[in-house]
Amino acid sequence: MLQIVILGTGNIAQHLFDVFSSYTNITIAQVVGRNSKALEFFKEKTETQTNFNNIKNADFYILAVSDSAVEEVASFLKDKNGIVAHTAGSIPMKVLQDHPNHGVFYPLQTFTKNYPVDFKSVPMCIEANNNESNILLKKLANIISDSIYDVTSEQRKKLHLTAVFINNFSNYMYQIGSDICEKNDLSFDIIKPLILETAKKGTLFNPETILTGPARRGDYKTIDIHKSQINNKEHLKIYNVITNAILNKYGKEL
Amino acid sequence: MLQIVILGTGNIAQHLFDVFSSYTNITIAQVVGRNSKALEFFKEKTETQTNFNNIKNADFYILAVSDSAVEEVASFLKDKNGIVAHTAGSIPMKVLQDHPNHGVFYPLQTFTKNYPVDFKSVPMCIEANNNESNILLKKLANIISDSIYDVTSEQRKKLHLTAVFINNFSNYMYQIGSDICEKNDLSFDIIKPLILETAKKGTLFNPETILTGPARRGDYKTIDIHKSQINNKEHLKIYNVITNAILNKYGKEL
Repeated sequence: MLQIVILGTGNIAQHLFDVFSSYTNITIAQVVGRNSKALEFFKEKTETQTNFNNIKNADFYILAVSDSAVEEVASFLKDKNGIVAHTAGSIPMKVLQDHPNHGVFYPLQTFTKNYPVDFKSVPMCIEANNNESNILLKKLANIISDSIYDVTSEQRKKLHLTAVFINNFSNYMYQIGSDICEKNDLSFDIIKPLILETAKKGTLFNPETILTGPARRGDYKTIDIHKSQINNKEHLKIYNVITNAILNKYGKEL
Repeated sequence: MLQIVILGTGNIAQHLFDVFSSYTNITIAQVVGRNSKALEFFKEKTETQTNFNNIKNADFYILAVSDSAVEEVASFLKDKNGIVAHTAGSIPMKVLQDHPNHGVFYPLQTFTKNYPVDFKSVPMCIEANNNESNILLKKLANIISDSIYDVTSEQRKKLHLTAVFINNFSNYMYQIGSDICEKNDLSFDIIKPLILETAKKGTLFNPETILTGPARRGDYKTIDIHKSQINNKEHLKIYNVITNAILNKYGKEL
């Protein structure tokens, strides 16, 4: 039985709590957080605690707090023997170096409150300061996911950057599409199959080989028509900068 | 039985040919194209023709040629009684106005050669110059798809622009992600579940309400770290312009 204390009460804490709770070989000994209202989510199923000086003993202390709070919260775990691991994409492992056994337990996925995620397919990025902790963090990760990766702090920083392009910026493309549809009396439903197929093909093919569209084929006439149709200044800037990047990459004239 | 002549031999022509061929209430009378090599794809299953003066009679003439060839190819159909419809996103219907019955039969999806598409979920955007042609084009569309929309030429132009943001530009985000992974010894597989989940959530939620990331929360420290990690000049421009658009949209300081 693996004993876990979760520190933090937000989005990631809730998702990890839900998935850990669904396995009988994991026990969540405690959830610790300052915000007693946020602790209500957890308190029917485990012990909750607002005082960071009253943290229980466990095999793993999973820090699911905001980036800026990781170091401070970790400082309350100085006398603990279990593994202290944070879940942040952009924080180096070394902020936990005061602990004999520490590491990173980073689920590379987008999480939305109250929207369940199939954790089995979530890549778990693992890093640890010693071999034993690495093995134990992977043992825990393996229970909840089929997709485990060794990822260094430097690589994880790059993954976090990648996730911004893949998730945040694709989402912003959807927002622009939604905005154009709304302004032209078109249901956004009409574009949803394209969103899904674009993503599916992005995972089945090398994205470079399947790109289509006016920039890819150097169709300046269509590009000009598109530009003339964009009223939003920010959207036009985005259209220009990505179109130019594509023209450039595929050897078309700017 | 609906009789169809397909004009054109490219990607869309092949996909429409495949889906039409799979229904017993549709007959493809002929495929017409200049390129005899490209016609080989079709010739085992239907009559093929390179001479545009020898086009058979049919209920529908589906023009699946490049945008710049639509008008010219349509000129060979002047004496035909069936419905002449093109399949292009950005070409107005009126280029076909010399024909008594004309319209548009635009499948809003990304198509890749030899990669089958589930047409049942492909939105078919229909426009016609008279009520009878509209009904007949919808009858044809209804056989292959469950998703039929009335879309004017002006709206279709906007949809085509939307598709560039949704498909081409999201694909380019994947390319940037793939590039960062490659340069940092990370398998692109690690990012694929995020691509799929991002798209899925983009269709289940209003994209505006689920956006996360440093720009959304005005986390300038992380934005600066990200910028310092981007070596590619074009990628940095894209990062900056989308980040600024998000900061601006969500009322954060630039």
